[in-house]
Amino acid sequence: MAQKPSIPKGTRDFGQLEMARRNYIFDTIKGVFALYGFQQIETPSMENIGTLMGKYGEEGDKLLFRIQNSGEKAALAPEKGLRYDLTVPFARYVVQHREELSFPFKRFQIQPVWRADRPQKGRYREFYQCDVDVIGSDSLLGELELIQIVEEVYRRLGIRVCLHINNRKILAGIAEVIGAPEMIVDITVAIDKLDKIGIDAVNAELKERGLNDEQIAALQPILNLSGTTAGKLTALKTILANSEIGLKGVEEMEEIFRLLDIVHCTLNIELDLCLARGLNYYTGAIFEVKALDAQIGSITGGGRYDNLTGIFGLPGVSGVGISFGADRIYDVLTELDLFPKELQSTTQVLFATFGQDELHYALRWAKELRAKNIAVEVYPEPTKMKKQMGYADDKKIPYVAIVGGNEMETHTVMLKNMTTGEQKQVTLDELWPIL
Amino acid sequence: MAQKPSIPKGTRDFGQLEMARRNYIFDTIKGVFALYGFQQIETPSMENIGTLMGKYGEEGDKLLFRIQNSGEKAALAPEKGLRYDLTVPFARYVVQHREELSFPFKRFQIQPVWRADRPQKGRYREFYQCDVDVIGSDSLLGELELIQIVEEVYRRLGIRVCLHINNRKILAGIAEVIGAPEMIVDITVAIDKLDKIGIDAVNAELKERGLNDEQIAALQPILNLSGTTAGKLTALKTILANSEIGLKGVEEMEEIFRLLDIVHCTLNIELDLCLARGLNYYTGAIFEVKALDAQIGSITGGGRYDNLTGIFGLPGVSGVGISFGADRIYDVLTELDLFPKELQSTTQVLFATFGQDELHYALRWAKELRAKNIAVEVYPEPTKMKKQMGYADDKKIPYVAIVGGNEMETHTVMLKNMTTGEQKQVTLDELWPIL
Repeated sequence: MAQKPSIPKGTRDFGQLEMARRNYIFDTIKGVFALYGFQQIETPSMENIGTLMGKYGEEGDKLLFRIQNSGEKAALAPEKGLRYDLTVPFARYVVQHREELSFPFKRFQIQPVWRADRPQKGRYREFYQCDVDVIGSDSLLGELELIQIVEEVYRRLGIRVCLHINNRKILAGIAEVIGAPEMIVDITVAIDKLDKIGIDAVNAELKERGLNDEQIAALQPILNLSGTTAGKLTALKTILANSEIGLKGVEEMEEIFRLLDIVHCTLNIELDLCLARGLNYYTGAIFEVKALDAQIGSITGGGRYDNLTGIFGLPGVSGVGISFGADRIYDVLTELDLFPKELQSTTQVLFATFGQDELHYALRWAKELRAKNIAVEVYPEPTKMKKQMGYADDKKIPYVAIVGGNEMETHTVMLKNMTTGEQKQVTLDELWPIL
Repeated sequence: MAQKPSIPKGTRDFGQLEMARRNYIFDTIKGVFALYGFQQIETPSMENIGTLMGKYGEEGDKLLFRIQNSGEKAALAPEKGLRYDLTVPFARYVVQHREELSFPFKRFQIQPVWRADRPQKGRYREFYQCDVDVIGSDSLLGELELIQIVEEVYRRLGIRVCLHINNRKILAGIAEVIGAPEMIVDITVAIDKLDKIGIDAVNAELKERGLNDEQIAALQPILNLSGTTAGKLTALKTILANSEIGLKGVEEMEEIFRLLDIVHCTLNIELDLCLARGLNYYTGAIFEVKALDAQIGSITGGGRYDNLTGIFGLPGVSGVGISFGADRIYDVLTELDLFPKELQSTTQVLFATFGQDELHYALRWAKELRAKNIAVEVYPEPTKMKKQMGYADDKKIPYVAIVGGNEMETHTVMLKNMTTGEQKQVTLDELWPIL
């Protein structure tokens, strides 16, 4: 036999159980999005190369997958690229369709993205993103709703989480008061790594990026602020007293916490002044969600941006969005054994038969059960009973309805519970309420 | 302002209403698949180029989209291609994972495919396919179940259809008895066009392909066979008396119709000897479904194949499958105005408020309603009432709950039915049963 076929490095096949579990995650998230009036859109897998280039930095440009038609000569520059994330296509969508949309525009989008990264554990060249955004309003209700969505999604999934929150305006204020306002990007890039590399390495990097010892020293008490959220915010008001943007950030955070109070949000939320998020389009609140019972990094993240559509010529449109990391959520649910058991099989009962007449009898029963919305399979041949039972075992089908001559005569089936091994003869009217 | 951004030719953005309608189609189909124990898989968007090349004929090879990493030199031959259909990846999947699968393997798959075709009305470079197959069994129960699935899917969608059925073995038998067994492919390719180009053009093409006048004349009465299915099958038994394969085909059709009888299938089914289906991997029953009330060609099609996995080194595995044409089904539902009206909005009620306190009041109500699984939006600012109502209008939200000082005092909202214009003051307990 020829060599087994394979798939490209960094890509995956999803089998039946994986799909059922992935659908469980996406359906849970979609169910919560719907409660808040977010509606789904989809954009094409390919975008014009000009839409993508220059949007993800120099490194990002290198990670774009470019597309050629087979017909085209290799020398012709390819003019299309595969979607690298859902954010840039969303910005492009909003600008292109702005006349048709009603603002604030609340959309979610669940589609694969592609990156020509070196594949490694947990890093794929094709993976799904799941983004939710509200754009066209600077109301902090946007932040509130996204936090409520995080609370409800993880409550439904059964994952205990902590939401870390910060504000880019506070970070800008800090840069201002330590006398390095122009270094806000360097500062955020460096402190964003705190979790991974530790405070000493961050300080070394800050120095390398041009902060002097005095400035670095001034930064330390701020990064180390502890205590209650209210306490931190009060302290920040003093620290940032001379920074207009910093105080605006504190005010935004106070308002967000006030709104959370009003709706009695019980989510575990931490004002984390070391949270920076690398992406420089964020301008207000920023979030990251971590699972408390699994060591896996951020499973959801996002923030407020004021000018996402500016790159496509529509400036001054404010929005806020978050992205759920489906692959990591999958890993957490697996590690904590939180996937519902019933995802293992969709079929409720398999009919196993001893002959052609029995097979026909089973087909009629199957039709009756399906009309009651019960998922039924009929083993397609009256072959060896062991083989038919093995199929039910493999597919983890909970019940097998065995049909022989005796069952046909008495208008019954012999129902076997595959978990307990119990068998009993039942009529159709007795059968369906069991399933 | 800069030029509006755009998307590549032949691709589409799907807005909220289109997505709701597409999801309605896919969810309906998936619901029926589940009743028969079919389970979902997904394969990567990109396959190794060797998996795809040579599987779709010379023309198909030219329509493959090839992928380059941005980092790679253009001179390097790209080694990956975008999925052209779901059939070849499915065959690759079955061979690659055969040790993990239980056969018969019942899978469905709903994913986009890409073809570098010249874009035109109704033909896209990216479109979804929706395939369902059972592989690893030659039982005609496979054909039966797929026909039952067609019956139920179109019953649920409300589309009246006719299923055309034929058998490639009968076509092979006909080629045999007219004395041109080696021309089975030419004959099927030609008569497959009967619908489009008419009998005269088909006969001309048959002559061009090498059939002589006598053979063409012998073919005519067969293509023109009319009457009941039973009558046609009886006539075929005489016509094909000397063709073993032809008689085998007739026998298969008789058995399929017998099984359909047993389950009291009420689908409109026509044995159509002119149905050929161009794809040469079919070896038994072939199907096409046409909408009775719309002129749009086939909306579902498929058939039995005996050697799909042979191309990947696993010969002799029989299967049967069909593919639902989502874009055409969408067009039929649009033309016949059959989409459920409630797809226009997912949000049941919008809260519109006259001030900050009212907004906070609305947030608390919204939380209560969402806990009852009702989709609620709160307009994010207490701006002009006209603007807030306009938002509800645009999004076709059926109810607006207006909150002013009076409502807060009386623990009520003023509920406006956006269809009738009626308003009434209601408490929370009165509100949610209305929604």
